[in-house]
Amino acid sequence: MFGTVLHGPGDLRFEACEIPTIVKPTDAIIKVAATCVCGSDLWPYRGIQPVAQPTRMGHEYCGVVTEVGSDVQAIKPGQFVIGSFFASDNTCPNCRAGYHSSCMNREFVGTAQAGILRIPLADGTLVATPEIPTDDMVPDLLALSDVMGTGWFAADAAEVGPGKTVVVVGDGAVGLLATLSARQMGADRIIAMSRHEARQKLAREFGATDIVSERGDDGVARIMELTDDVGADCVLECVGTQQSMLQAIRSARKGAHVSYVGVPHGVELNGEELFYAHVHLHGGPAPVRRYLPKLIDMVWSRQINPGKVFDLTLPLEQVAEGYRAMDERRAIKALLRP
Amino acid sequence: MFGTVLHGPGDLRFEACEIPTIVKPTDAIIKVAATCVCGSDLWPYRGIQPVAQPTRMGHEYCGVVTEVGSDVQAIKPGQFVIGSFFASDNTCPNCRAGYHSSCMNREFVGTAQAGILRIPLADGTLVATPEIPTDDMVPDLLALSDVMGTGWFAADAAEVGPGKTVVVVGDGAVGLLATLSARQMGADRIIAMSRHEARQKLAREFGATDIVSERGDDGVARIMELTDDVGADCVLECVGTQQSMLQAIRSARKGAHVSYVGVPHGVELNGEELFYAHVHLHGGPAPVRRYLPKLIDMVWSRQINPGKVFDLTLPLEQVAEGYRAMDERRAIKALLRP
Repeated sequence: MFGTVLHGPGDLRFEACEIPTIVKPTDAIIKVAATCVCGSDLWPYRGIQPVAQPTRMGHEYCGVVTEVGSDVQAIKPGQFVIGSFFASDNTCPNCRAGYHSSCMNREFVGTAQAGILRIPLADGTLVATPEIPTDDMVPDLLALSDVMGTGWFAADAAEVGPGKTVVVVGDGAVGLLATLSARQMGADRIIAMSRHEARQKLAREFGATDIVSERGDDGVARIMELTDDVGADCVLECVGTQQSMLQAIRSARKGAHVSYVGVPHGVELNGEELFYAHVHLHGGPAPVRRYLPKLIDMVWSRQINPGKVFDLTLPLEQVAEGYRAMDERRAIKALLRP
Repeated sequence: MFGTVLHGPGDLRFEACEIPTIVKPTDAIIKVAATCVCGSDLWPYRGIQPVAQPTRMGHEYCGVVTEVGSDVQAIKPGQFVIGSFFASDNTCPNCRAGYHSSCMNREFVGTAQAGILRIPLADGTLVATPEIPTDDMVPDLLALSDVMGTGWFAADAAEVGPGKTVVVVGDGAVGLLATLSARQMGADRIIAMSRHEARQKLAREFGATDIVSERGDDGVARIMELTDDVGADCVLECVGTQQSMLQAIRSARKGAHVSYVGVPHGVELNGEELFYAHVHLHGGPAPVRRYLPKLIDMVWSRQINPGKVFDLTLPLEQVAEGYRAMDERRAIKALLRP
């Protein structure tokens, strides 16, 4: 079997790897129908987050179960399944509280850019679709494995709802799907902060009512202008840098809800600024598993089409080109077909 | 008239000041029935927060209205009133959202350790009691001006409710009244973090079910031990230091609500730690005005007795001794009678 391995900054190889097999009785093996490249994969690819040794890549997946361990009960061979980047038992106190990505027994699924994949804690992690989906639906279902669930969490954590004015910081796949989520949750006004034409277009298609292309202090000033100097009710931070985080907090009205779902890189929040900002802050690794049943329903009934964020589809063996295209911002998100 | 003036670290004087008069038509003048020393007054008193020039002190007050400006309608001379440390118009978008301490026209009331006091935005700021209270109720009503409202906000912002396990970090007056608030809101278990015997006793009286005297990492370890390694549902940070803030966040379960109500001094939060902590964070200067009507009712019906935090009562002219006693932790909170 071939899989994707990062050897160092920019040095991504599609090379021979061991075929995964059942290791624990709670495992399942799936034949990957589709996988993709995540914005967070670019951190190590760019060398910003160094890798100590050759590292398998990929944490988004859907596919057909081929084998299950002896303790697996709910998941069966032949089912088409989707899971999150964190395997979770779905039974511990953190899972019961809805925070599956902080499951006490979580395991990171980090080898998904490959043809075959081992999933730990299969019963807790995987959710099956009602039937085997048609091929055109696979991108929509794949999106649920991370970006759509993360965008939904961004909107949920910021308490988006009817009548609310929402700001989305970040026009990557997660930001765009946070926009779609805010629309689904009935937001009144959705201001997407984006400076790239293709992404602005998709943001509008997903439900953005306004586009702000300024960033930093200028971006904040525009938001204040658009909200009568009050600020937004809900701000969804979908980047993870110091600038984007401050931009989010400063765009919020007093008492607003600010969510953050991008892994922070170099972010330090000053306690006093946060204090006087008077915002609610909530975020972290999205508990995608919590939302999978609902989001699968929404895709299945064609209510949402999150797969639109994939503007590049490649055979899996061309994974390196997928990384390059995203790194150079030629693509929003690259889907890979084994 | 005499008032309290801080001339430099430790140099607090009770000296002749101009008698306040109506400046704007929205002002009221009150004859102070009682005022007090706040934990936050100790920051400049200790020189940690330097004062550039001699500075009037005091932001907690209740008393009888003696005069109102020509635009004041709801508040009348003769009424006994309580207000917050931030005067607020009660009509701007931030006030309407319940964040009176971020009122767009707010003014800090900073001259309350005196016999007579000017209150800006009187109609929006002041709330009258049903009648003139008996003398023994004055400490309870005075507590509503800041510490009780702040403790209540700590519990409210951390979404305390029935069935919840609550941790209170800090055993100053605010922490103690946060404990009382958590009890009133029906918390199941209230763990007060306190290492001072007199404060532990009052915490128990106010409703704490457990006391943890360890701090920092040891304190966190004790909370984890007491919560089966899950962490608390609600953590109320009532200090404002880096150590107390981290202690609060690390004592929380995934998805928990952490509130912070003490003005942060030197607090920097690492984005990545916050991200993986998976907590909700909310705080800021307590919107005391939001809670005044409810808390006045609760004091008036003798349901709560927040005045118990005053363990030292002095004539106002001995205000310097009040500061010293609190600075040396001989007193939890000093009440001053003009």
